[in-house]
Amino acid sequence: MGFSGNPHPNPLPSKGEQFTQEESEIVYRVIHARRDMRHFSGGEVAPEILQRILEAAHAAPSVGYMQPWRFVRITKADLREQLIALVEEEKEKTSDAMDERKAEFMRLKIEGIRDCAELIAVVLAPDDGTVFGRRTMPEEMALCSVSCAIENMWLAARAENLGMGWVSFFEPADVANLLNCPEGAKPIALLCLGPVKAFYDKPMLEKEGWRERKFISTVLAEDSYPT
Amino acid sequence: MGFSGNPHPNPLPSKGEQFTQEESEIVYRVIHARRDMRHFSGGEVAPEILQRILEAAHAAPSVGYMQPWRFVRITKADLREQLIALVEEEKEKTSDAMDERKAEFMRLKIEGIRDCAELIAVVLAPDDGTVFGRRTMPEEMALCSVSCAIENMWLAARAENLGMGWVSFFEPADVANLLNCPEGAKPIALLCLGPVKAFYDKPMLEKEGWRERKFISTVLAEDSYPT
Repeated sequence: MGFSGNPHPNPLPSKGEQFTQEESEIVYRVIHARRDMRHFSGGEVAPEILQRILEAAHAAPSVGYMQPWRFVRITKADLREQLIALVEEEKEKTSDAMDERKAEFMRLKIEGIRDCAELIAVVLAPDDGTVFGRRTMPEEMALCSVSCAIENMWLAARAENLGMGWVSFFEPADVANLLNCPEGAKPIALLCLGPVKAFYDKPMLEKEGWRERKFISTVLAEDSYPT
Repeated sequence: MGFSGNPHPNPLPSKGEQFTQEESEIVYRVIHARRDMRHFSGGEVAPEILQRILEAAHAAPSVGYMQPWRFVRITKADLREQLIALVEEEKEKTSDAMDERKAEFMRLKIEGIRDCAELIAVVLAPDDGTVFGRRTMPEEMALCSVSCAIENMWLAARAENLGMGWVSFFEPADVANLLNCPEGAKPIALLCLGPVKAFYDKPMLEKEGWRERKFISTVLAEDSYPT
């Protein structure tokens, strides 16, 4: 499959359209049904669906229009195995860094990197020197842009009834090395994407008793930081 | 208006539902129609719409289920003025840090902080010490979680036919000070939200010739960083 076949940098220009209330409700349903999935059922993602999901990523906002996201689709089984080895190594180190009660959670299935249909590494590109909108927070704003692209993918995937999970158990320098990233590039996600048997009804870590969902009053206030 | 009135931490639980192709197309239309808006037409955002948008934010994924996002709705005119003053100051400094050609872009309308119906500061909460999923990239992963929440808001707003713009022209410490943030909290966005006359047909910085949209082949490759 070739993603480079599309000669149009703007394949889906906005028409400045209006959305109906019924349409906006669908967007909310997708936002609330999205889950960070760790259980996949193999299978595959049709090329045109994968393309749509990646184009959704590339439609994300970015500070100074940097578009600092880079996506590496992992197709080679041995490369996936090498990434799995890095993730396993980091899981050990994380477990060692946690107290005993918390380390128990590491026995849960905390990533789906072995059984997901598609594995996609997301990399923050080396800094291009943009000052516009990021003089005071350069790396932060570039990272935020890449994250918006990932959230677009997540919602697009959910709307396609596909699960996605963001694996962050790795040393970025090791992943950068495996993927031949240039100096200054930083892998921030190994995205597991593909069919799932079922979506969790709540976030997995909430179901498993790791942590509660915060009340909205905890995260929101007027004119002053919430207390 | 009170956001604290909702006693349910999970007001919109997912039903693990399936979406139809027609429904997924709506999600894509919203993703591609979303713009980083800098032109607003005043007016207001109905309380129930604002609540829905903020609940969409709070439904975002977060590393280790930290939910590290905090939202401060600015209601006081004098507080908005103080924030505007900080943004104006930073625009000057950014302009000084750019070469002459680029500094011209600072004469564009690059924020809508004065004419947007709602102004919402988004703050990264102080680190809660979570190790799970972020041993190797602690601040990065927390920031990424907050950004996913902001992208949810952006798409929810667009689906409600409201514009949103992410203003990052400020010194985070100064904004933290104005909003009584605790030590370790970091404001990352001043979100301008509200009615707009029209959405840009392309990203404003692209329309204005600041930078081109990258071809998808530039940002995507298989098994190795795109070259």
